[in-house]
Amino acid sequence: MNTSPATDRETPVLKVGLLGAGTVGSQVARVLLNHAHELALRSGVCLELSGVAVRNPQAPRDTELPAQLLTTDADAVIDAADVVVELTGGIEPTRTRVLRALNAGKSVITGNKALLAEHGRELHDAAAASGAQLSYEAAVAGAIPIVRPMRDSLAGDRVNRFLGIMNGTTNFILDQMDTTGAAFDDALAQAQELGYAEADPTADVEGHDAAAKAAVLASLAFHSTYTIADVHCVGITGITAQDVAAAREAGYVIKLLSVGERCGDGVNLRVNPVMIPRDHVLAGVHGAYNAVFVEAANAGSLMFYGQGAGGHPTASAVLGDLVSAARAIALGAQGIPLDAYAALPAVSMDDATTRLSITVAVTDRLGALAQLAQVFADHGVSISTMLQIEDPDAPGMSQLRLVTHSGRHASLMATVAALRELDVVRDIVSVTPVEAGE
Amino acid sequence: MNTSPATDRETPVLKVGLLGAGTVGSQVARVLLNHAHELALRSGVCLELSGVAVRNPQAPRDTELPAQLLTTDADAVIDAADVVVELTGGIEPTRTRVLRALNAGKSVITGNKALLAEHGRELHDAAAASGAQLSYEAAVAGAIPIVRPMRDSLAGDRVNRFLGIMNGTTNFILDQMDTTGAAFDDALAQAQELGYAEADPTADVEGHDAAAKAAVLASLAFHSTYTIADVHCVGITGITAQDVAAAREAGYVIKLLSVGERCGDGVNLRVNPVMIPRDHVLAGVHGAYNAVFVEAANAGSLMFYGQGAGGHPTASAVLGDLVSAARAIALGAQGIPLDAYAALPAVSMDDATTRLSITVAVTDRLGALAQLAQVFADHGVSISTMLQIEDPDAPGMSQLRLVTHSGRHASLMATVAALRELDVVRDIVSVTPVEAGE
Repeated sequence: MNTSPATDRETPVLKVGLLGAGTVGSQVARVLLNHAHELALRSGVCLELSGVAVRNPQAPRDTELPAQLLTTDADAVIDAADVVVELTGGIEPTRTRVLRALNAGKSVITGNKALLAEHGRELHDAAAASGAQLSYEAAVAGAIPIVRPMRDSLAGDRVNRFLGIMNGTTNFILDQMDTTGAAFDDALAQAQELGYAEADPTADVEGHDAAAKAAVLASLAFHSTYTIADVHCVGITGITAQDVAAAREAGYVIKLLSVGERCGDGVNLRVNPVMIPRDHVLAGVHGAYNAVFVEAANAGSLMFYGQGAGGHPTASAVLGDLVSAARAIALGAQGIPLDAYAALPAVSMDDATTRLSITVAVTDRLGALAQLAQVFADHGVSISTMLQIEDPDAPGMSQLRLVTHSGRHASLMATVAALRELDVVRDIVSVTPVEAGE
Repeated sequence: MNTSPATDRETPVLKVGLLGAGTVGSQVARVLLNHAHELALRSGVCLELSGVAVRNPQAPRDTELPAQLLTTDADAVIDAADVVVELTGGIEPTRTRVLRALNAGKSVITGNKALLAEHGRELHDAAAASGAQLSYEAAVAGAIPIVRPMRDSLAGDRVNRFLGIMNGTTNFILDQMDTTGAAFDDALAQAQELGYAEADPTADVEGHDAAAKAAVLASLAFHSTYTIADVHCVGITGITAQDVAAAREAGYVIKLLSVGERCGDGVNLRVNPVMIPRDHVLAGVHGAYNAVFVEAANAGSLMFYGQGAGGHPTASAVLGDLVSAARAIALGAQGIPLDAYAALPAVSMDDATTRLSITVAVTDRLGALAQLAQVFADHGVSISTMLQIEDPDAPGMSQLRLVTHSGRHASLMATVAALRELDVVRDIVSVTPVEAGE
């Protein structure tokens, strides 16, 4: 760090190298260029944008950047910088570049959930070895401060569970389906029209994006290292308007939740569409908003709510990390190493504890319940509520909607498989986990 | 700092001196004594409870503490400690003791909102001079991480406004009134029975507790220094069952909000009972829960939700601060000084921008509206909505419920005063600000 001759006292100058100038990157650059004085007063350091690595310096972008800052040479930007902000995404060559910075003792701010969910341990180890800081508030739930609260504010507590709505695209789609009765395809088309979903929505609707965030957040919450491979992941493409309507009728709403939960001596991580009671605070998270609900031994229930994506919100998270990193550098601190001391193993979905809502179409409404009840009893699964309704697809016939008590997931699924074999069962209409209800 | 011979590697030992062993203090002591190993793995430091200053060492307390740690000599506890946790409350002798610790370069963790709201600047200056850390997550909204997110996560953003439900007692009372139709006195009695309100509820129901928290949070949000004297404060003792019912009928709920808001070149701080739309996320904060809603230029709308009081939740916040302070000390960092560079002046209530819901009992339903509308026009105040209803207190007579657009508070109040002078006006039934609605 040099000192700046432009300020009264000798304010240290921190050179910020930016990798990527897309939606988020150009917002970050704009604030660094236009609000330098304010950021200096807050951080005690002059944050000087020293270079911006982009694929095409001639491409049009949201914010006009000085031409002399733009280059295609990412390594040169890293080498000239004191702090690196990585907003390019993807695994390679990003991983190599981030390691280059960390190995040289340069703190890195990134919003790259995919990279962290696969190589988080390696990056943290590199940061710890050189004393650099690795910050990634933007990687989980966009603008919502959740990484820092999880790492610092809850550092003296014991997190038992988190339930997160961590993907705005899928929350928008499910919210549309719930409020307007739309089919999945129509809600997705609307999300694409409004810019909430990409042309190829796979990463969002299949739950991959939410799963990466779950792995990153769980590593902090449970003081262990998880990758995306540890997350059981089911998307929302199978959710029908009928499922949504049936849930609504029963007092529930369907949300794609990222769940991290202590389970025996380990932790189960899952992303799947679930039913949550309409009076739960998470049910009030509408549109493309995100929220993370946390249950801790001492703090009790906490919820963090806000925008999970978008250029401005994500830039806010990146800049918060940048100012914090700059303050820490100015105060002579090294980065906080990731503590993964607990090393709680990932528990498979079979061994997880879940509850299921099961809708069964039956042929004989009089005899069916006794036979179904016997199957549940045989599997040691107990029924919490049962409702008999007219089958909307077969007038004169019945459906039974059952919600189980909590049980081992494999036992619950074995029960469903056995139900399917019964003569009185015409169809298993739906099987949806229930969360936040017991 | 010494090093501990008990651990494999040379883990530094940090002596923690505790002032106060009440509900929160004894929880903090319990965790320090029973979970020392886990805290050491998280913080990289052995946190050793070195002394506990109490008024009466023989008094019974929630957690059994080793007799040799207890003393009435607070100064001795401070002098023997590396870090001081202050949980005694009150202004003096607490202020002198906290300064004694900070002046000696010892980091302090406190939950004392009253002390911070009066002497925050002095304490921060002392901390900055010696390089000590001053942490107080527990002082605002109990277990909810809001101090750290405001200071760090939003450090690169611009906070425009916060709306906080920061007092659990009053939220419980108002929520009871809303859900059961109870009168204020009955709801208060119930809160006292359940332990949510103290025998002398003045500090809660008059808004003083919420005002102290507003001053502390606003200082961080707006990079300035505010004291409780800067907060316009109105309690909830004047709220009647009729007010609550009328708000409900109009689609609102009454909440005691702590508001900090940019206003011209300054900041207006106010605590008062207001009407908020029932579909706003803050309306879903029930019982003794707290929440802080934040509007920032880039992040957009954020909300932080959780338990605002109680031994366990508050201890969680204190321990989060303690582990973070220990990590920073282990990593060689000084405390983050309070940046009050913006020095935005407190704007008086007269100059604040507000909206009012005004209910007027009129004698002549035909002629009244024209005369009222003229008074509004004369004061340059525009009416957003108007509803005429049967006067519940005078059958055959009418009430007019008006909600204004935003305006200068003094003009709105002058309008109300002028309405009172009209012959057609029998009574001004209620005047309640409306928040979060435009």
